[in-house]
Amino acid sequence: MSNKKLVEQITSRDVDFSQWYTDLCLKAELMDYSDAKGFIIYRPLGYAIWENIQKYLDAEFKKTKHENVYMPMLIPESLFQKEKDHVSGFAPETAMVTTTGVEDLSERLIIRPTSEVLFGTHYSKIVKSYRDLPKLYNQWCSVVRWEKTTRPFLRGKEFLWQEGHTVHATAKEAKKETLDMLKIYKKLGKDLLAIPFVTGRKTNKEKFAGALETYAIEALMHDGQALQSGTSHYFGNEFAHAFDIKFTDESNQLKYAYQTSWGVSTRLIGAVIMVHGDDNGLVLPPYVAPTQIVIVPIKPNDEVQAAVKKLSKQLSKKYRVFVDDSSKSPGWKFSEHEMKGVPLRIEVGPRDLEQGLVVVAFRHTHEKVTVRLEDVSSFVKNGLKKMHDDMYQKALDHAQSRTYTTTNYDEFKSYLKQGGYIKMSVSGEDAEIKIKEETGATARVILKEPLLSEICPVTGKKAKQTILFARAY
Amino acid sequence: MSNKKLVEQITSRDVDFSQWYTDLCLKAELMDYSDAKGFIIYRPLGYAIWENIQKYLDAEFKKTKHENVYMPMLIPESLFQKEKDHVSGFAPETAMVTTTGVEDLSERLIIRPTSEVLFGTHYSKIVKSYRDLPKLYNQWCSVVRWEKTTRPFLRGKEFLWQEGHTVHATAKEAKKETLDMLKIYKKLGKDLLAIPFVTGRKTNKEKFAGALETYAIEALMHDGQALQSGTSHYFGNEFAHAFDIKFTDESNQLKYAYQTSWGVSTRLIGAVIMVHGDDNGLVLPPYVAPTQIVIVPIKPNDEVQAAVKKLSKQLSKKYRVFVDDSSKSPGWKFSEHEMKGVPLRIEVGPRDLEQGLVVVAFRHTHEKVTVRLEDVSSFVKNGLKKMHDDMYQKALDHAQSRTYTTTNYDEFKSYLKQGGYIKMSVSGEDAEIKIKEETGATARVILKEPLLSEICPVTGKKAKQTILFARAY
Repeated sequence: MSNKKLVEQITSRDVDFSQWYTDLCLKAELMDYSDAKGFIIYRPLGYAIWENIQKYLDAEFKKTKHENVYMPMLIPESLFQKEKDHVSGFAPETAMVTTTGVEDLSERLIIRPTSEVLFGTHYSKIVKSYRDLPKLYNQWCSVVRWEKTTRPFLRGKEFLWQEGHTVHATAKEAKKETLDMLKIYKKLGKDLLAIPFVTGRKTNKEKFAGALETYAIEALMHDGQALQSGTSHYFGNEFAHAFDIKFTDESNQLKYAYQTSWGVSTRLIGAVIMVHGDDNGLVLPPYVAPTQIVIVPIKPNDEVQAAVKKLSKQLSKKYRVFVDDSSKSPGWKFSEHEMKGVPLRIEVGPRDLEQGLVVVAFRHTHEKVTVRLEDVSSFVKNGLKKMHDDMYQKALDHAQSRTYTTTNYDEFKSYLKQGGYIKMSVSGEDAEIKIKEETGATARVILKEPLLSEICPVTGKKAKQTILFARAY
Repeated sequence: MSNKKLVEQITSRDVDFSQWYTDLCLKAELMDYSDAKGFIIYRPLGYAIWENIQKYLDAEFKKTKHENVYMPMLIPESLFQKEKDHVSGFAPETAMVTTTGVEDLSERLIIRPTSEVLFGTHYSKIVKSYRDLPKLYNQWCSVVRWEKTTRPFLRGKEFLWQEGHTVHATAKEAKKETLDMLKIYKKLGKDLLAIPFVTGRKTNKEKFAGALETYAIEALMHDGQALQSGTSHYFGNEFAHAFDIKFTDESNQLKYAYQTSWGVSTRLIGAVIMVHGDDNGLVLPPYVAPTQIVIVPIKPNDEVQAAVKKLSKQLSKKYRVFVDDSSKSPGWKFSEHEMKGVPLRIEVGPRDLEQGLVVVAFRHTHEKVTVRLEDVSSFVKNGLKKMHDDMYQKALDHAQSRTYTTTNYDEFKSYLKQGGYIKMSVSGEDAEIKIKEETGATARVILKEPLLSEICPVTGKKAKQTILFARAY
């Protein structure tokens, strides 16, 4: 097969973004469908991206004194119903265990869609005194939500995530935690995913079931649609009342505690694909890429093999390197590793080698540079850094060039057709509902910016907040 | 509270081993019970031990070219029934999702008790040619088995584990994989858990549902009962037939592939507790301990605080260090960190400090040594190494002193009362069944040792195998 064929297997991004996305997920071997409808298999490449995200976040969580725990996968139905806003938000999406095949259960058990009620119950048991506070727990697990329409990584009946759940003595501390974790998520975008996240508070309509305040990280995909990529919630002491989480403070007064929760999921893999990918496949930001450098020997004689071995050994000390010495043709290998998004390719061929040279190809720009063997190490270091920065900047430029400001609802609609973020000042939930019904756009976050108009262009009422709108996944 | 009180909260190990175990699990804050009966909460200390086991194994798996993936949590019932031995082994223990609360499912979904059928289905899809082989996959997840009687870490309705599933072109390769992974598990015991595992093949009666051969790592607990601590299975091409996993070999012949699976679980935490723990609580082998060194300031004046800070900074570069500067009394702290099994305690007090000294206390022996400040670093390094070796040796001595050999069934029974491993040559499954019924002991592994007698002391038939028996958890 020619190397063109592999590339031809995915739809062009600008012809049909949705089909391009699905094609890429399958052809890059990130995932596969499973026999349980709406559930996917995370193949080695997809899972390894998640592992790198985990490694980054877990280190950040531990640096900030968080501890990992693991709560049961199943929640008794009666326990789940303790916090009424929470249950009404999640009840329709719950998968329930009712039987063991041998005998029916006396109470139905819900597979966790999220674990607030489990942490709430545990905290009510272990928190007694101000000395026990704060408790800063996190859990890595999978959750199940019975979504009707599913898409790989973006929306599935099961997804992998981390859910942080913390409990504090004061509202101030809990609010600080909510925002501190949001900052860590934003930093994940900057440091690892090369994605410029917009952060901000959600409107009441869009906030999490049971939370007082929800904050989110949002990213703009290549097609101009937004993706909510993570959230951080402040609960006040609502759950503490429902679950009876009380402590005696320093003056021996019994008080209700304050809580937060926050999470990101394998949806981030979808963000990476849709922000950076191109018609040749996946483009992985270098620091999150499971393989950072692929070395491809061309017409491998003894000298080439020796050079590849030496180079691989040298670079493996600092980078994740794969030597593709399979029997496939170089062209096939090139397109295969491009499809899989490997940031750098080093081609080692006999002719270049005679002059002490190799070719380094960048995945994101397709640029090829001839480099002297003794310079490869420093070239790679700088190259990966520059690549990361360039990818971040490109994504930022894309988002900024697609961020519109308007005080006119018709203009809003025409911007929306082009796709992107739109800033508009509106009256409130009434405007949000109308906009969603008429255009499909939703409030992504509330902006801390002055009002753009005194009157809401949607309802004609007094404008109260400037909101960033977009169509979203 | 005096420091005695905390210790008094756990039952003595030699008075009631079972109660001692449960007390320790709770008081050391390794776990807690949850509202779903038979499901436990892994608290920070319990989970952190598991994380250290994961880190060790995951590195070993990756070194040996295994890749991590993630399969769905739910399995359609029809898929689960494809391999008949497998389904008959697991069917009674399956938890089934039948409804979403809004609508009943058209097919019942089983929460994975193990994922052979998911890997089998996936492999049948992605394995086409000998070039695709081997596939060496592993998964970190939790599984659900509806056990009737449960005990923290040892047997629960849900547990955390890794399950490796590999597929190979030849039986020879698959058999090698089965044994290679068993070796990694044994090495985990030697390097990290300070547990001398006995390894060997299981009898047909005890092997995994659907496997041709099952190998296990077994350990002897302090009370003389054995604990199966991990298994490695060779499937031949049984599953490949059931799931149609075929490939074309180098001569273009269509062949069935060969498979293995292997796993260890959070049961290993139970092994660590029951092999090393004592009446003061948990005793953690130093390399798996989440906190390796606790520094306790005594009457902390400025000099003490400065010395603690310096020591902590210095030791944290190489070890996991916790400074307990809480307001609790030193005695209370001592017993609390003993309960939690912290290997080394460094006491920094004003009097010792004046002479440039600190006290280092070993958890496993309660030995206290006065050490010069400038020697602490090397003392700790050697101390942890020696501690690990001593703990391993002690566990080995215990197991060896409790390993009996007999050719007499009455003697077998009296050894069994004392508790331990018993070697005996038996006729086969008929003897195994009788032994189990009459004594509760089961075949742990088949020994590669000469026959001890020509006649089986249980059945009077010809002896065929020498087997290591024990009562087991």
